[in-house]
Amino acid sequence: MNVLDYMQTLGNQARVASRAIARASTQDKNAALVAIAAAISEQRDTLKAANALDMARGQENGLDAALLDRLELTDGRIDGMLEGLQQVATLADPVGEITDLKYRPSGIQVGKMRVPLGVIGIIYESRPNVTIEAASLCLKSGNAAILRGGSEAIESNQALAACIRTGLAAAGLPAETVQVVETTDREAVGALITMPEFVDVIVPRGGKSLIERISRDAKVAVIKHLDGICHVYIDEFADKTKAINIAINSKTHRYGTCNTMETLLVHTSRAADILPELAEAYTNIGVELRGCERTRELLVDINEATAEDWDTEYLAPILAIRIVDTLDDAIEHINRHGSHHTDSIISENYTLSRRFINEVDSSSVMINASTRFADGFEYGLGAEIGISTDKIHARGPVGLEGLTSQKYVVLGNGEIRQ
Amino acid sequence: MNVLDYMQTLGNQARVASRAIARASTQDKNAALVAIAAAISEQRDTLKAANALDMARGQENGLDAALLDRLELTDGRIDGMLEGLQQVATLADPVGEITDLKYRPSGIQVGKMRVPLGVIGIIYESRPNVTIEAASLCLKSGNAAILRGGSEAIESNQALAACIRTGLAAAGLPAETVQVVETTDREAVGALITMPEFVDVIVPRGGKSLIERISRDAKVAVIKHLDGICHVYIDEFADKTKAINIAINSKTHRYGTCNTMETLLVHTSRAADILPELAEAYTNIGVELRGCERTRELLVDINEATAEDWDTEYLAPILAIRIVDTLDDAIEHINRHGSHHTDSIISENYTLSRRFINEVDSSSVMINASTRFADGFEYGLGAEIGISTDKIHARGPVGLEGLTSQKYVVLGNGEIRQ
Repeated sequence: MNVLDYMQTLGNQARVASRAIARASTQDKNAALVAIAAAISEQRDTLKAANALDMARGQENGLDAALLDRLELTDGRIDGMLEGLQQVATLADPVGEITDLKYRPSGIQVGKMRVPLGVIGIIYESRPNVTIEAASLCLKSGNAAILRGGSEAIESNQALAACIRTGLAAAGLPAETVQVVETTDREAVGALITMPEFVDVIVPRGGKSLIERISRDAKVAVIKHLDGICHVYIDEFADKTKAINIAINSKTHRYGTCNTMETLLVHTSRAADILPELAEAYTNIGVELRGCERTRELLVDINEATAEDWDTEYLAPILAIRIVDTLDDAIEHINRHGSHHTDSIISENYTLSRRFINEVDSSSVMINASTRFADGFEYGLGAEIGISTDKIHARGPVGLEGLTSQKYVVLGNGEIRQ
Repeated sequence: MNVLDYMQTLGNQARVASRAIARASTQDKNAALVAIAAAISEQRDTLKAANALDMARGQENGLDAALLDRLELTDGRIDGMLEGLQQVATLADPVGEITDLKYRPSGIQVGKMRVPLGVIGIIYESRPNVTIEAASLCLKSGNAAILRGGSEAIESNQALAACIRTGLAAAGLPAETVQVVETTDREAVGALITMPEFVDVIVPRGGKSLIERISRDAKVAVIKHLDGICHVYIDEFADKTKAINIAINSKTHRYGTCNTMETLLVHTSRAADILPELAEAYTNIGVELRGCERTRELLVDINEATAEDWDTEYLAPILAIRIVDTLDDAIEHINRHGSHHTDSIISENYTLSRRFINEVDSSSVMINASTRFADGFEYGLGAEIGISTDKIHARGPVGLEGLTSQKYVVLGNGEIRQ
């Protein structure tokens, strides 16, 4: 079978399965999650053997250390999968929730019911644990899923797919509820994103160029997350201790995450008081600083930040610093150079901080908190399939609710339109 | 200037204006709506003169009576616009609403804030009143709008655009908040739907082929409404009076609307009791009936419904009738042949009607109510820009809320990630 036919077959099977999983009971979906965990636990050795094949081929092919690290299925990661499955099982089922049922003057009662999206296609890097994460979130939210992981993880993913099938069967749910693409042919991705008759939404996870390509070529909705160029703005009325703690934490808690601060903005009136102390702390931790002209008058040793720096997601121990004159300048800088991801103001001023959260056009806006909090778990979603920097449908961390939609429900007693 | 440059200019102006309108106060937006109404009221004669030019050209070009009727700006329609503007001014402002602000174990307080989408492009038929409807909804929801009405209405739309500019200026809002495309060149549509840097979402209104073409070619999100193949299912446990009233109302209240019933499904146990009486009522009103084989055993005079009928949106006094054996058959028929728009079950049975609203995959599902209620005004949205049969972002009637998104708000007190 050629790749296109194969993907169409998966798509058709997913569409059929999506109807069954959409009306599956919470009990059955949770039973499947628990049974998948049991299968993974039983097959731990098989999974590690399959992963060893991927790792060996990856080493042969000269994958870099970071990629190999993400590819590896350690016992710790397998335990993490088991824990994740249990956690998703304990989350409230979003499907079927009815809200806002209100009577209208005509006598009908109108509300909204939360329903699955249908079939979700997920395209991700060579990280086998994402297979289980994505499968569990789609399953719990009543969606069918087609998963296309990175080709380097093909053996691991197929072994995990077998565990998923075992779990689904144990709960009496269709095996096609979660399908893992079995070919590493890149045409499979092209097919997956252009089958609106079978796939309702695509969630791409990976590098910016992959996501841009998928967004450009997809014929269905894409819940996408491009880069995270996050800012902290230390306002004129900032509390110095909060400012320093949050600026350090937002940059240095982890360097490679999308909610890490990449540019620090400081109100001119506070620069002399705060920047030298902050710079010393950063330098001690090993963060390279790059500053605007005025910053470099205060911190004479640091490099110059060029125009490019303001638009760069470093994902590394590098920080750009700019001194601004007003809140408006800070907001203007963030809306122009940021990626609409996460931005935080440090201020004790009510009106200025209120303006900041109203006017900064990002998926998460914060007052006196570290940008590192922009995360599904920290927000109480229980889990997250990604962080959307889009405005349509889902914005910010996407959990179970982001994988659903709402339909209108009308309860009547024989009413007709007059 | 060529069309592409012209549209890019409009797009760029809209993007700039979108930032101002996004943070405009409720008071200023309402002032603009009222001022637009005042301008229309003052310019009533100018508007009618401009419309007379469109009507004369339309007659010359042989537009059919229905199109000419939609094109005409009567005093009644102008009064309708004025009333609509006042109504939108009285609606609650969705922008800035903060919900679900909850404390998390880390100490941060997380909630959601409703925000405009940005720039909305609306493509519609030659109905000048839609220009005001679309402008008022985008304005109130804090979005900038680029409106592209049908070319037959160009004079009317330009005259209305002048009134909109007057109203915006009176309220101190940027004139580019609402821009009406001044060219009738069809390339303008192609440009409008492929400028993701300037336009965030497209709302197409019009024929199915136009909407399909726009969905296929658009590079931005489309809130679309294709056809409305709506069903009423008379269940085994239907109340006969409700069944007959709703079946008649759903079909005959208006024939040309998307929420009109096109296919009637009847449980086999109730067919002999209900169908002859219903058929007589339909025939008296002048509705042509087309039935399945079993229906034609009861109603011997009617035409045969072919496979094509189940998939047809008649928008005319024609009704297809099918007798089914079970609720499952009814749901299967609706999910397969319907357009996921609006479907209603007539039943006194709790479990069956509950299954119907859970399992029918449509934007509106109803129990014992006429499908004609699927409408933004009837649902209490105050206004509607269209009815979405999509699952992503907005589903069902789209009002002010459907033209907004939600971002996360985090209120902290210096919290950092541990």
